[in-house]
Amino acid sequence: MTIQSKFSGLGTDAAPGQESRQLSGGIDAILLGDAITGRPVDFSHGDVDAFTPTPGSFEVFSAGVEAGGRQAYTEYRGDLGIREELATRLAGFTGAPVDARDGLIITPGTQGALFLAVASTVSRGDKVAIVQPDYFANRKLVEFCEGEMMPVRMDYATAEGRSGLDLSQLEDAFRSGAKIFLFSNPNNPAGVVYSRAEIEAIAALASQYGATVIVDQLYSRLLYAGVDYTHLRAQKLDAENVVTIMGPSKTESLSGYRLGVAFGSREIIARMEKLQAIVSLRAGGYSQAVLRSWFDEPAGWMDQRIREHQAIRDDLLKVFRATSGIQVRTTEAGSYIFPALPRLAVAGGDFVRILRLQAGVIVTPGTEFSPFSESSVRLNFSQDHAAAVAACERLVTLVDRYRA
Amino acid sequence: MTIQSKFSGLGTDAAPGQESRQLSGGIDAILLGDAITGRPVDFSHGDVDAFTPTPGSFEVFSAGVEAGGRQAYTEYRGDLGIREELATRLAGFTGAPVDARDGLIITPGTQGALFLAVASTVSRGDKVAIVQPDYFANRKLVEFCEGEMMPVRMDYATAEGRSGLDLSQLEDAFRSGAKIFLFSNPNNPAGVVYSRAEIEAIAALASQYGATVIVDQLYSRLLYAGVDYTHLRAQKLDAENVVTIMGPSKTESLSGYRLGVAFGSREIIARMEKLQAIVSLRAGGYSQAVLRSWFDEPAGWMDQRIREHQAIRDDLLKVFRATSGIQVRTTEAGSYIFPALPRLAVAGGDFVRILRLQAGVIVTPGTEFSPFSESSVRLNFSQDHAAAVAACERLVTLVDRYRA
Repeated sequence: MTIQSKFSGLGTDAAPGQESRQLSGGIDAILLGDAITGRPVDFSHGDVDAFTPTPGSFEVFSAGVEAGGRQAYTEYRGDLGIREELATRLAGFTGAPVDARDGLIITPGTQGALFLAVASTVSRGDKVAIVQPDYFANRKLVEFCEGEMMPVRMDYATAEGRSGLDLSQLEDAFRSGAKIFLFSNPNNPAGVVYSRAEIEAIAALASQYGATVIVDQLYSRLLYAGVDYTHLRAQKLDAENVVTIMGPSKTESLSGYRLGVAFGSREIIARMEKLQAIVSLRAGGYSQAVLRSWFDEPAGWMDQRIREHQAIRDDLLKVFRATSGIQVRTTEAGSYIFPALPRLAVAGGDFVRILRLQAGVIVTPGTEFSPFSESSVRLNFSQDHAAAVAACERLVTLVDRYRA
Repeated sequence: MTIQSKFSGLGTDAAPGQESRQLSGGIDAILLGDAITGRPVDFSHGDVDAFTPTPGSFEVFSAGVEAGGRQAYTEYRGDLGIREELATRLAGFTGAPVDARDGLIITPGTQGALFLAVASTVSRGDKVAIVQPDYFANRKLVEFCEGEMMPVRMDYATAEGRSGLDLSQLEDAFRSGAKIFLFSNPNNPAGVVYSRAEIEAIAALASQYGATVIVDQLYSRLLYAGVDYTHLRAQKLDAENVVTIMGPSKTESLSGYRLGVAFGSREIIARMEKLQAIVSLRAGGYSQAVLRSWFDEPAGWMDQRIREHQAIRDDLLKVFRATSGIQVRTTEAGSYIFPALPRLAVAGGDFVRILRLQAGVIVTPGTEFSPFSESSVRLNFSQDHAAAVAACERLVTLVDRYRA
């Protein structure tokens, strides 16, 4: 494989946040009607000006700078004192012990943790089970490591009280030799939570086939009313075969500090540290200090954040469900909503560009997450409430305008 | 290649900064005499409490946090406004144009830039010319990408006014198919600067054989009196075949913010951004703001920093040269010194551990940089002046104690 062919699949042209690099050539010819005015909303990521970082996070960062060299140059896996604080809190949150010394690594964002976890477990030709739809980088990470992707469908649209993962496809993948299963829970982009029965089944299958599971739980703190969350790492399977990934970039709006953690399997964490040593040395030393504020937010702060997101979710659901032909499942956790649009007279990718040009609305095309999601778009609704609702109203106006 | 074998070569046990994870089992049996008291010095990296971060760097970081979402979520390659400021300054410094939009990427540290540059140019089986000795991660990066290393010797110990790179070995490597040449200038660990004639010869050979050159110029601002520095990217070779890497982690003591840049070849930078999107998304958004202070330090600040380092260098040279059997070349740039010790009664790796246990002195073993450097140790002398001198006096006392 040449380096050119290796990178040809790693396109970022439609990736969230990269819209400013897109050219709009050719689209003018298919535009219908005039632009709709309104405050622009970038749904490709959360708006940390609308939902601001955890109170006290900057102060704890400043204390890190004040601490000087000790905080600037930590072990590659992160400062031990901070790992110890986190281990206790993460064990409490997930319901299973975390080994601060050998079973936890601090990374530059959860993206850093995902990269290190995949590159530390997948080598050329290894089969990896990947959910469709799921976080777009999962597929790219497997491709970069030259693994072989074994897709597992998730019928989130019709399932109720569960994700809709096709467990028989997952077992087929394990039976065909998949040694790794990588998935996000809550699912990105669909915003659904795996049921207890599904998580227990995943644990049982992974145990039976000796597979390693990497579970991205980035959004597992932002659960809406009535939703139960089951932590895979607290189920019956060998703790050395599970790596859990979390971080404070989303719910806590701390993305600007680039922080994530991976915890679980000591052997895999050890490899991840070896790799981090040549990839970026360590998560930013001063930024690591910000983790001291994580899982230690002011009383009531997280509850309020959840309530505010749930209120936006409910209003967006109303807008979408009032429009004929839009299908959308209720987001159970996190701040993604993934409506499937009706048949349009323009291609899915073109409609995404039209939305940006005519409505000032940036969304991420569904094809980033699954080849079967061309009719869907993902919105991160962690936004100013009124602006988000108005932007979705413009979106459905354009859906009507461009219907097939 | 299994994932286990892939990682077996990536050991970090002797890597700088990881000493706290080392066990001291077995060493007691070979200790001679008592410990020598004195203020411990960790020469594995610079002491940012002795040489503090650039004045104003924290304030410009704080302004980045204040800017909010715009600064937290930049393009993957970094904020365009900051890239534009940097492009102008880096063009002025290196003597060749820098394309802010397409030819520059901001990375998590220079380590991040090195990883992305190598992983964006080297695929399985590609031959890569690597200097011996050179920065230890260079070898590991090539191994991780499953490239084939073509070693090129540098006889820095005997050369004068040049690095001593064996240009005929470099040409042999190109003739044998090496398509990439990766090297640091000033050299890490030897602290020597390539002469104009050497850089021109490298440019001519790279042009002749169509090779890509990745040059790590991390220490190119910290030049001592009388030293000329030649920028490879300003020489006669195709600008698309050169990537230059720099960052403010060392001379400017900004390592805690994890910042680096790579600039040059548009095609390679484009690949690096695609890879960054799945490795860590972007350099920490708020940290990027700190680059506004880079190459914009207060008048006289850099000159003073250079003078202070030169004074430490001169005192360490005196200590080493007063000890029979220690050979050391004068550091021309940067803050590394790389003395070769006389024959000892203990192995090189054991002596490094003894130094830590009996003298409170942490150094990096020469074998991290080259298989031919077992008798050498690397010291980063960006330390408190008096403490560094005292620590080196303890080091030479132990050299005398453990002589063969």
